[in-house]
Amino acid sequence: MEPLISLVNGQQCEQISIQDRGFNYGDGIFTTLKVKQGCPLFLSSHLERLSRDSSRLALPSPDVKLLTAEIKDLAQIYSDCVLKIVLTRGVAPRGYFCSDSVPTRALIVYPEGELPFSKTLVRYAVLRVCKTTLSNNLQLAGVKHLNRLEQVLGRNEWRSGEFDEGVMLDQNGYVIEGTMSNIFCVRSGVLTTPLISQCGILGVMRGQVISIANTLKLPMVESQIRLEDLLWAEELFITNSLVGIWPVKQLGEKKYGSYTLAEECIKQLDQMVLNEVRLWNNNAVYSPAPDLPG
Amino acid sequence: MEPLISLVNGQQCEQISIQDRGFNYGDGIFTTLKVKQGCPLFLSSHLERLSRDSSRLALPSPDVKLLTAEIKDLAQIYSDCVLKIVLTRGVAPRGYFCSDSVPTRALIVYPEGELPFSKTLVRYAVLRVCKTTLSNNLQLAGVKHLNRLEQVLGRNEWRSGEFDEGVMLDQNGYVIEGTMSNIFCVRSGVLTTPLISQCGILGVMRGQVISIANTLKLPMVESQIRLEDLLWAEELFITNSLVGIWPVKQLGEKKYGSYTLAEECIKQLDQMVLNEVRLWNNNAVYSPAPDLPG
Repeated sequence: MEPLISLVNGQQCEQISIQDRGFNYGDGIFTTLKVKQGCPLFLSSHLERLSRDSSRLALPSPDVKLLTAEIKDLAQIYSDCVLKIVLTRGVAPRGYFCSDSVPTRALIVYPEGELPFSKTLVRYAVLRVCKTTLSNNLQLAGVKHLNRLEQVLGRNEWRSGEFDEGVMLDQNGYVIEGTMSNIFCVRSGVLTTPLISQCGILGVMRGQVISIANTLKLPMVESQIRLEDLLWAEELFITNSLVGIWPVKQLGEKKYGSYTLAEECIKQLDQMVLNEVRLWNNNAVYSPAPDLPG
Repeated sequence: MEPLISLVNGQQCEQISIQDRGFNYGDGIFTTLKVKQGCPLFLSSHLERLSRDSSRLALPSPDVKLLTAEIKDLAQIYSDCVLKIVLTRGVAPRGYFCSDSVPTRALIVYPEGELPFSKTLVRYAVLRVCKTTLSNNLQLAGVKHLNRLEQVLGRNEWRSGEFDEGVMLDQNGYVIEGTMSNIFCVRSGVLTTPLISQCGILGVMRGQVISIANTLKLPMVESQIRLEDLLWAEELFITNSLVGIWPVKQLGEKKYGSYTLAEECIKQLDQMVLNEVRLWNNNAVYSPAPDLPG
């Protein structure tokens, strides 16, 4: 899908400099969020991620106020869309060293994706296991940086519409995530998600599901998971900021018949989304809180 | 340093599309070569690398004839320069999946670097050891792809001019390479370079040095090397396509006093470069070989 509009450092622009370090080295980070009825969903979590990931790569801290203003403007015009935010170390001379540079801030608006983030489950996901593995590296683990060749290779292992997502393992054979999603499973009634400590991305929707589990007082762990654990699980679902929570009906040969916990989480997520949209459109978000009488 | 000129898919252009997969995912490869007196040094090795790396990432095979013609044109105008060639999977819709796309071919000309590729050794390199480690991944090992965050983080660990290069280790503590160079050492008279099988880049100059060692019948191995091996080595030198062979005088606290083998290799390399330049300027390179009488 072609972008509807893109802004580079605040200016409408469809190109970036050939000297940008994002292009030359993948020296930057990104996040992708869903805009629903004019509301950029879970915006504060996305902004937190951008700040946290910037600090992990020693990128200049994003100007959150400026970013918020630009996102607000775009969300007002494109009220239901996908918004991708890319921050790079900017334009700089050739070479890995970078003494100083003006960072690049790109906001790219795409039409709504085909998979609805909705309370109605239109279908269930079918997964496969990727041959491509994820690299372990403490220094990069968790960060949604622009070095995404492993995901590219993993996702391009299949071309048919038969599969919706591929499960990726790390160098030690542990399950980490999907090519574009985080993974949750239910084992003996306990909601379990892979530990993101040596590789993988700390997805914004992953964080929301963990907070839902806390709210609903569901037993929940982050732990090392093997492929066998997924194959023995009662339930499996994947998450990302565009599809929300997506229950899985099949992984390879294994079929799942239960979606109870996923549906419970989806109900809660739908409620959170409704609240976010309502609050946003009442201008209650990002306005200063009123002084309360003492 | 600002580029002198850049061509994107044959057109003079200083920008690339914001939808380019090089920018969004680092989904591409590159090589950097030195142009000396109008001759792009070791061009056939650079072209081979581009073809080999394209195939590793399932990128479309580069059009070597077209690429050679563009390089020839640029080298005629910018007779002493640094030429960077970037090939990406091109402009495509959002998402890791890519069904088809027109690849992007960017040639960027920079002024000559400050370090001369010459028979006169102006100085010796001082190295440090990086804290940033390289990720092990069989699928990406050897390839000079655009996912270079580890090199960026490694190189930016120091800001002073005190050090020329940083040694990078892999996840198992083995020495792999420098942030922008390959590494050779001499141990008990045997020229040794790290095995590039699980991570690291197969540099063009690394290949030249291996072929020089063969020509000179020097005992030579590619093997797993620990940091202690470098610290006990009689000699140490680093290589890349811009500096050629660069003898090391210090790594951390360890000082090296011998440059015998490095100098022998440099002498041979200088001869190879002279021959390349002479042949190129006689138009003997890339012309069809004359039919010999039978």
